[in-house]
Amino acid sequence: MFFDEGYSGRKFIMSDKTYEEADIVVFGMPMDYTVSFRPGSRFGPNRIREASIGLEEYSVYLDRDLEELSVHDAGDMLLPFGNAAKSLDRIEALADQLFQDDKFPVGLGGEHLVSWAVVKAAHKKWKDLTVIHIDAHADLREEYEGETLSHSTPIRKISRLLGPENVYSFGIRSGMKEEFTYAETSGMHMSRFDVAEPLKKKLPELEGRKVYVTLDIDVLDPAYAPGTGTPEAGGITSKELLEALHAIASSGVEVVGCDLVEVSPAYDQSEKTAVAAAKMIREMMLGFKS
Amino acid sequence: MFFDEGYSGRKFIMSDKTYEEADIVVFGMPMDYTVSFRPGSRFGPNRIREASIGLEEYSVYLDRDLEELSVHDAGDMLLPFGNAAKSLDRIEALADQLFQDDKFPVGLGGEHLVSWAVVKAAHKKWKDLTVIHIDAHADLREEYEGETLSHSTPIRKISRLLGPENVYSFGIRSGMKEEFTYAETSGMHMSRFDVAEPLKKKLPELEGRKVYVTLDIDVLDPAYAPGTGTPEAGGITSKELLEALHAIASSGVEVVGCDLVEVSPAYDQSEKTAVAAAKMIREMMLGFKS
Amino acid sequence: MFFDEGYSGRKFIMSDKTYEEADIVVFGMPMDYTVSFRPGSRFGPNRIREASIGLEEYSVYLDRDLEELSVHDAGDMLLPFGNAAKSLDRIEALADQLFQDDKFPVGLGGEHLVSWAVVKAAHKKWKDLTVIHIDAHADLREEYEGETLSHSTPIRKISRLLGPENVYSFGIRSGMKEEFTYAETSGMHMSRFDVAEPLKKKLPELEGRKVYVTLDIDVLDPAYAPGTGTPEAGGITSKELLEALHAIASSGVEVVGCDLVEVSPAYDQSEKTAVAAAKMIREMMLGFKS
Amino acid sequence: MFFDEGYSGRKFIMSDKTYEEADIVVFGMPMDYTVSFRPGSRFGPNRIREASIGLEEYSVYLDRDLEELSVHDAGDMLLPFGNAAKSLDRIEALADQLFQDDKFPVGLGGEHLVSWAVVKAAHKKWKDLTVIHIDAHADLREEYEGETLSHSTPIRKISRLLGPENVYSFGIRSGMKEEFTYAETSGMHMSRFDVAEPLKKKLPELEGRKVYVTLDIDVLDPAYAPGTGTPEAGGITSKELLEALHAIASSGVEVVGCDLVEVSPAYDQSEKTAVAAAKMIREMMLGFKS
Amino acid sequence: MFFDEGYSGRKFIMSDKTYEEADIVVFGMPMDYTVSFRPGSRFGPNRIREASIGLEEYSVYLDRDLEELSVHDAGDMLLPFGNAAKSLDRIEALADQLFQDDKFPVGLGGEHLVSWAVVKAAHKKWKDLTVIHIDAHADLREEYEGETLSHSTPIRKISRLLGPENVYSFGIRSGMKEEFTYAETSGMHMSRFDVAEPLKKKLPELEGRKVYVTLDIDVLDPAYAPGTGTPEAGGITSKELLEALHAIASSGVEVVGCDLVEVSPAYDQSEKTAVAAAKMIREMMLGFKS
Amino acid sequence: MFFDEGYSGRKFIMSDKTYEEADIVVFGMPMDYTVSFRPGSRFGPNRIREASIGLEEYSVYLDRDLEELSVHDAGDMLLPFGNAAKSLDRIEALADQLFQDDKFPVGLGGEHLVSWAVVKAAHKKWKDLTVIHIDAHADLREEYEGETLSHSTPIRKISRLLGPENVYSFGIRSGMKEEFTYAETSGMHMSRFDVAEPLKKKLPELEGRKVYVTLDIDVLDPAYAPGTGTPEAGGITSKELLEALHAIASSGVEVVGCDLVEVSPAYDQSEKTAVAAAKMIREMMLGFKS
Repeated sequence: MFFDEGYSGRKFIMSDKTYEEADIVVFGMPMDYTVSFRPGSRFGPNRIREASIGLEEYSVYLDRDLEELSVHDAGDMLLPFGNAAKSLDRIEALADQLFQDDKFPVGLGGEHLVSWAVVKAAHKKWKDLTVIHIDAHADLREEYEGETLSHSTPIRKISRLLGPENVYSFGIRSGMKEEFTYAETSGMHMSRFDVAEPLKKKLPELEGRKVYVTLDIDVLDPAYAPGTGTPEAGGITSKELLEALHAIASSGVEVVGCDLVEVSPAYDQSEKTAVAAAKMIREMMLGFKS
Repeated sequence: MFFDEGYSGRKFIMSDKTYEEADIVVFGMPMDYTVSFRPGSRFGPNRIREASIGLEEYSVYLDRDLEELSVHDAGDMLLPFGNAAKSLDRIEALADQLFQDDKFPVGLGGEHLVSWAVVKAAHKKWKDLTVIHIDAHADLREEYEGETLSHSTPIRKISRLLGPENVYSFGIRSGMKEEFTYAETSGMHMSRFDVAEPLKKKLPELEGRKVYVTLDIDVLDPAYAPGTGTPEAGGITSKELLEALHAIASSGVEVVGCDLVEVSPAYDQSEKTAVAAAKMIREMMLGFKS
Repeated sequence: MFFDEGYSGRKFIMSDKTYEEADIVVFGMPMDYTVSFRPGSRFGPNRIREASIGLEEYSVYLDRDLEELSVHDAGDMLLPFGNAAKSLDRIEALADQLFQDDKFPVGLGGEHLVSWAVVKAAHKKWKDLTVIHIDAHADLREEYEGETLSHSTPIRKISRLLGPENVYSFGIRSGMKEEFTYAETSGMHMSRFDVAEPLKKKLPELEGRKVYVTLDIDVLDPAYAPGTGTPEAGGITSKELLEALHAIASSGVEVVGCDLVEVSPAYDQSEKTAVAAAKMIREMMLGFKS
Repeated sequence: MFFDEGYSGRKFIMSDKTYEEADIVVFGMPMDYTVSFRPGSRFGPNRIREASIGLEEYSVYLDRDLEELSVHDAGDMLLPFGNAAKSLDRIEALADQLFQDDKFPVGLGGEHLVSWAVVKAAHKKWKDLTVIHIDAHADLREEYEGETLSHSTPIRKISRLLGPENVYSFGIRSGMKEEFTYAETSGMHMSRFDVAEPLKKKLPELEGRKVYVTLDIDVLDPAYAPGTGTPEAGGITSKELLEALHAIASSGVEVVGCDLVEVSPAYDQSEKTAVAAAKMIREMMLGFKS
Repeated sequence: MFFDEGYSGRKFIMSDKTYEEADIVVFGMPMDYTVSFRPGSRFGPNRIREASIGLEEYSVYLDRDLEELSVHDAGDMLLPFGNAAKSLDRIEALADQLFQDDKFPVGLGGEHLVSWAVVKAAHKKWKDLTVIHIDAHADLREEYEGETLSHSTPIRKISRLLGPENVYSFGIRSGMKEEFTYAETSGMHMSRFDVAEPLKKKLPELEGRKVYVTLDIDVLDPAYAPGTGTPEAGGITSKELLEALHAIASSGVEVVGCDLVEVSPAYDQSEKTAVAAAKMIREMMLGFKS
Repeated sequence: MFFDEGYSGRKFIMSDKTYEEADIVVFGMPMDYTVSFRPGSRFGPNRIREASIGLEEYSVYLDRDLEELSVHDAGDMLLPFGNAAKSLDRIEALADQLFQDDKFPVGLGGEHLVSWAVVKAAHKKWKDLTVIHIDAHADLREEYEGETLSHSTPIRKISRLLGPENVYSFGIRSGMKEEFTYAETSGMHMSRFDVAEPLKKKLPELEGRKVYVTLDIDVLDPAYAPGTGTPEAGGITSKELLEALHAIASSGVEVVGCDLVEVSPAYDQSEKTAVAAAKMIREMMLGFKS
């Protein structure tokens, strides 16, 4: 009576269902140990939740309301600091359970390597899984400074697991020459610089496919998302990112889960990155889950 | 001799005329008690003045100079803290006097509710008044958390007073479903997401009308205006907002007053919101007042 | 298994008991509408919780561990924005229930006016209640700008309810002349500028009394607590504040509840205010509740 | 009627008298071109004024109220950017006039070099003038990078004009070896590291003297005053600085003017430096001017 | 062996060649004394270097890698504070030597006046030099507040030296009426508001010419580059600026040197301005120097 | 001639000797992967260097000048991200070489675990080595979240290597109960809360001993050092820390090396932590190395 969980700032807005009741499960993956430039994304999930208070429950873009969904916010996972391998194992185990329980996972990063663990779990359930990857960085390295578990490697790992032909990257504007050579020669799809237009062109060929969407907030220009680990100038606007998410929502693909990673509050003084991330999460939930 | 008011940082640039001499009166309305998300706009007017020091007096967009105008900056109003009703009464009384004295009011908010008080006064003088409303939020609620005096309600109040057909909203990207239903069924005009293009299409039908312009700075994307109470991702650029104001300036409408609201310095670390607001004020004064 | 509530950043550290199990109940009172200078304390409770993650569960000062307590963090209350009277009614009703259920309340502000509501409830249960008030400001005004419900008035209201002889203020360094005159002539106790030394002198005369402790974080110098609504230079150090709280803990008074108010994150860029507040909360819980 | 200058944020609190009515004249000297480390103090005066809104008019330390004084805030001077010599000439001319009109000047810097111009003017009126200098830095250089007009040289210039025996420096903790050698051999007084205790010991020998007080805010530790051009760790607390100012106020010296310099808002995110400076200004006005 | 200069954060990424080995010399010009609004660009060069760590060495836009170049980062120049004339003399002398040694200079400002000194040196070597000037401000004043050495005057000086017909300005959105009149009547080229499109139209007529490129970071909107001395709303995106630089790179002009000025870290809390500047420097080096 | 390394901002002030010439070697250890609360100390060394520009070369505390020393700043080490074990191996190898070459190492952290590697190297040369440890945290854990290589464990490791009787900790105010039990029962020395007074009492018994000093900046209160990974309220002032370092300098111990760790720029908006750290480094070099 005195406390309204949906409004208290402790959960993502309107995510007040129990695990059992919920179709969608929001959870934080506060891992950031392999980031090379500016760490701090472990606090990202909590600030995205706080920023979600400022959102309406209704999306005029999609004409849908969060009331129409059943969402449980499970909080942040307990992960062993500094141990990337063990952390990924725990994330994978959680994702296994979520998929087994027919939940739609909405993961909040943390660094991009966390997506690798969730995709591994999704692939166990859907052998023909496709990944849509929206990012400034190719993340296609074999290793980074000798480590294969790095924030620069998840898409390469995913490409090897799913087959390059099932990986679609959009908005890429940074990487090593080797990464772009791999993108060109492996059979994966990569669109440079832009997101909405090339995505709209590719979506028809994905019709009917099971798709996991992984969104690195740094695809936005640092003007829109300064609070991130590896800001890269020359990015897209939040308007274009919304247009891209809405294009997926209105396409014939079946989204089975999604994440949003790399929100780093220490460089987000005005909280605009968290504000943008919270809105993207709302739109993904309303658009991806019927 | 030693002090140059136009340069001192204590008034808006070139607003050094006396009340009697002036055609335009700039004044601050430091009220922010009904804001739900992030308060603090009470300090907005002073920081806009400070930022105006960095501006040229000349606008290359309009080929006009502030020297051609007579402006008085009256400072910030004294308002009773925490009492929205009394504060609005004082603002209305001031606006009554300004309109009676044939001054062109340029109000600096403060939260958006202050516009309601100024429009009430303008409507006493011009019964056929039209309002152009540029904002991210519909502000069309009947009440908010049981209060009818809320930052979410001013346009609904204005619509009831002027008639919905005399309210034109542009750039709206957030609100409750009920607000958008009202917008569609009441007879008012609402353009979603964009400002400049739909405004240019509507301006011809407003030719010859008395118009009050109310501008909520949060129509800009948080990239351009992070220092505001309810930042909403997916907004327009400052270039588009300038284009919209210049379209009004070159149209056949007669602007009788204007305001700019919701600048909140606590979230404006780099002062970019105040810098943008100061330029918009300069352009509105140069463009709206012949 | 995957989620550890005590570590997730969503509750105060180690506050993972249910309401029924708990002896202590932490709750947020996100109200800040009557603050005159810099609003924003409504987000204080959530940031204090976030900062508590960085704390140890063990206090070397008191040689006690949070494991020895049973604490429930109930989240933030749902309060009607902009309506101080209704908000205070709700807080009082919650506090009534907490005292009725024999819970020890630990309130997180919000502005200082919230303490007035909790003390009213406490006074219903303990007619001989004493209040220890630690603050930079006297808060003894009859009204502020014509309003009696203001952040400047709670101690005056408390003094009238409990009798001035049951109010003990420490650290006061700001107020109107009238407030200090009242303090000198009414029979209440007020110590200026310092906290630990005068408090230690007064505690023996309070032995055996039921005491409510209300702590305004701005008693700390702005060097230690910049994130507050009315920062006042010339304050005490966090070391002195700890010393004061430990003196209460080791005295013979029986503390029946406490609060910490006026943490305002918008001015707390380095989060040091939230970090200090979280530690004070830990020490008050460990020291005041056996 | 609608505007209350004392509350509007455009003047220092309660500085609403006209020049003619006033005994005290507050004025800003927005010059910062010779600062070597972090410039930006030109915006200091305006932020000190803004922060003064948060102050009470009454000082419980001195049991005096600003209502007992007659203060005019003249705004910021118009100075030629980048030209230190011309700027100093203008400041000296203004100070000449203030002293001629029997006004008590309260100068807001700007960099410390501005004090040199005011002291030159004061020395024309009082040939036996003494300067009390409170600062982290000796400011006793002959030149800095080949320039004699530098923020590192004002006290050396003052010492040459007034005679070293009429210069009393307190709190000094940084300088070149040559500066400390000069301090020891010239006959001036210099106390290192501390302010309040050594000042209290020296004040009796200054009884009956005409004294100008120049206060560099960086005498405070960067914990208390981060917003300054040359922050130096190991400084005093704001409590000690208040104690020092109150010691001067209650001594037998006759203060003829004062200034506070080097507040630099760009490094003052939480505004604590401006908040401390505003309080020091209030205490100096209440304590120095009967 | 333990230290990798290219990674240490002390030099611009991959600028580890000796002066003798290098074709390109990066150097900082930490001068900002004539800036009128917000000083602080003297720290710009160091933060651009620090931000460069986050960049890849490879540009996917140009398909080139910094490994293909030989770059020496010479650090920041030693300049006499507060003395603009002597500082410019030193910069000119350094530029003389660089051009004599057939080095390609990449200057990091500092305020825009520094470009005047480098262009003077370049003009000694190439009498038919052309300047491409990308900026928000015309910088065409004869003087500013009586000073001819001001950040508002460098392009006017350059125009007089090279002849107006050899000066091409793009993106200009602010200036005095006199500056725009000069631009229209003198024979120089000026494009207002936009950069990429008008530049692409003009480049063919510059084919074969020796060109110096001077880039003021404030041509970007404050959303993209808040950390600058005179932010001006209504600017271009970082995507458009990249497009413009790439257009120069693929045109037939011969670039002989370039600079990037006015990065001011004090207003760059999230470091996005330094991040954008570092990328522009990388693209200019890779695109302009074969 | 044009570049003065001592002033360029790229090295610690006056650290311009070559490795061969130098007696003292400053080096950065940009490792922060095991920090649990707020990472980011990898950028600490560079910001300490930048802040050192604001320092005088002369210390009035010690009456010594950096000119009397021979210092080489070697830059930041290249460390494999995310791999704590390999990073520590590299640091140990570097320290081995420094001690072998009779250099006095001054390490800039980075997280506190780096000290473990340097002490291991020092212990190879001096079997009777003593460590003076100044910190807010005991750092005496056996493991943290299952990892033995954690920022919470270095002093426990050092205690095991050197023998507890050779470890002296000062200022400790946070830790688990087990850590304090270990401190009491193992034979090591630990002083709680204070540093200068207990250190002065212990120094006589260390006379003639070889001592390594490891200083965690978080021993300062967050008021003085907010830019750190695990801020803990209730700390000491920078004045007390200076007093402690000067006590070591004037005692009869022989310091063989030192470090300063845990400066984290992302939470150091006003740069006061870097400013304090730079001064402590200067005082340690001037005081510890004859």
